[in-house]
Amino acid sequence: MKNDLILRAVRGEKTERVPVWLMRQAGRILPGYRKIRESVKDFQELVKTPELACAATLEPVDILGVDAAIIFSDILVVPEAMGLDYQMLESRGPIFEKTIQTEKDIDAIRVGSTENWTYLLDAIKLTRKELNDRVPLIGFAGSPWTIFAYMTEGKGSKTFSIAKRMLYSEPEMAHKLLDKITQTTIKYLKDQVAAGAQIVQLFDSWGGILSPESYEEFSLPYIAKICNELSPLVPVIAFPKGAFFSAKAIAKLNCAAICLDWTVDPKEARQLLPGKTLQGNLDPCVLYAKPSVIKSKTYKMLDQFGTQNYIANLGHGVYPDIPMENVKHFIDCVKQYPQA
Amino acid sequence: MKNDLILRAVRGEKTERVPVWLMRQAGRILPGYRKIRESVKDFQELVKTPELACAATLEPVDILGVDAAIIFSDILVVPEAMGLDYQMLESRGPIFEKTIQTEKDIDAIRVGSTENWTYLLDAIKLTRKELNDRVPLIGFAGSPWTIFAYMTEGKGSKTFSIAKRMLYSEPEMAHKLLDKITQTTIKYLKDQVAAGAQIVQLFDSWGGILSPESYEEFSLPYIAKICNELSPLVPVIAFPKGAFFSAKAIAKLNCAAICLDWTVDPKEARQLLPGKTLQGNLDPCVLYAKPSVIKSKTYKMLDQFGTQNYIANLGHGVYPDIPMENVKHFIDCVKQYPQA
Repeated sequence: MKNDLILRAVRGEKTERVPVWLMRQAGRILPGYRKIRESVKDFQELVKTPELACAATLEPVDILGVDAAIIFSDILVVPEAMGLDYQMLESRGPIFEKTIQTEKDIDAIRVGSTENWTYLLDAIKLTRKELNDRVPLIGFAGSPWTIFAYMTEGKGSKTFSIAKRMLYSEPEMAHKLLDKITQTTIKYLKDQVAAGAQIVQLFDSWGGILSPESYEEFSLPYIAKICNELSPLVPVIAFPKGAFFSAKAIAKLNCAAICLDWTVDPKEARQLLPGKTLQGNLDPCVLYAKPSVIKSKTYKMLDQFGTQNYIANLGHGVYPDIPMENVKHFIDCVKQYPQA
Repeated sequence: MKNDLILRAVRGEKTERVPVWLMRQAGRILPGYRKIRESVKDFQELVKTPELACAATLEPVDILGVDAAIIFSDILVVPEAMGLDYQMLESRGPIFEKTIQTEKDIDAIRVGSTENWTYLLDAIKLTRKELNDRVPLIGFAGSPWTIFAYMTEGKGSKTFSIAKRMLYSEPEMAHKLLDKITQTTIKYLKDQVAAGAQIVQLFDSWGGILSPESYEEFSLPYIAKICNELSPLVPVIAFPKGAFFSAKAIAKLNCAAICLDWTVDPKEARQLLPGKTLQGNLDPCVLYAKPSVIKSKTYKMLDQFGTQNYIANLGHGVYPDIPMENVKHFIDCVKQYPQA
């Protein structure tokens, strides 16, 4: 491995400089991605064509100089593998044809298995080959609660009140569905590791809309199960977005690193998550600002996190309309940050 | 005042039982409201017709038995008073015709004054008369940052990245606009108090999408200014939704009470906000559940907050599709909670 900074950072080993990558680095901010996206009929065609997914994955490594690649895919591959088809609408996000409302609906979907995501494994293998050990490759999945939210709601939502209603009105049914998603996700991530993913990140994008009590009953235990199964195989980064209210419980996860959103104070995170490598957490909107502001905010973030056991990143995926030069400047600022 | 429980609770005086009301209690959950709404051409006609706004305000007092009325209106009355017209679309929320993007746009809008919201003052006067001191009447406004977010974004948003972009790229311009909104809001709330509002609540609905640093630069100082101006006249309840990451700074606000969303742990709130009356914070989705669950979650909340210096409420506005019987059951549970 020519650049193993991130692997060392997640293992808690010394790094001579802070590693950096961005969530959604392979996407609309890059000209090559936009060209690939225009060449296909829909988002799924891109996700399901290994050569295209590989090309999208490599572009930020080549152009931006990030310290890791993350396989181009989507967290909704898991519900699709379980039997729920979705469409990704450019301006509106995902829409599922059917949603899960009853016990019968839960029984009707399957625990996904390798043949349901062969295309992703092929993309990972091809990307590892093309990367040729330049930087590590990250695999990923959504958390069971986040996948549950899409499966029951059928689309994005401000409140996810349909998904949350099931937690309060049919808790046993909710656990049954969460368990089925968890089984699928464990298999899905183990397959990614076997195909060549060297780190995996678990995105709990919608944990933050739960109360602490619901979070610790319906989201965190399933993340913990996945961490327990995966951590012996690969470093796991958990991203409990918006759920820092449960920091003390999150600290107990059997994972290498915790990714933080921008609402979290770095010093408080260091106190409440001892022994974990931390990742994040610049507000993506900082990248709309002029270069001097990007630099001062990035430096301040590095001052606060410190340079060890740390991976610089944004606190959320980069927004599609952020200028690529600004993204590049952020990465360069991390690389140029003076270290002892 | 026949029922002054909430007034005593915000003043920190003893109450023989916990008072209760709901944010958005005057709305779609009630049959009378839906009838009124169907009788007008748009949402604004309802807001701007004092007799109708009064009728909507009184209905929850009559039907649900809440311990306070809140004047039927909208936080977007303030940007409208400053010269920005909006439409309220039933399924999509508010849409502004023009948005604020430049210094020139800021100069072009006015600091609102009494003649821009006479209809609201008339509604308050009429409602006080009709209430006949049965329960106190609450007035309200959005926080300057939340109003700023709508004025710059022009509509609701998942990220409010247009609004936040201005904070990072044009901070001085942002402060200029926030200052103009703050001046208007102070006048607006003072007028409400003069017309008869006995408590005012300040809704910072979008504080939670900021980083702690941005929150404490662009939102909290303006809330503090308003509290300083209003607190000598009336008890102020501040609602920093999603912004409990800045709890220590929020604790310093010169206000009587803090309203909390459902992501906040009641015991932690008591520790971090000493001396404040607290309001909230049941997850609105609990009200989708069966009566026994509503009761156990409500009782647990009261156990944790304690019965003094406390106003029971949800952690956000009640959702329009929640059955009215369930809302009623929540209110009855609070009233029946055994107190020493």
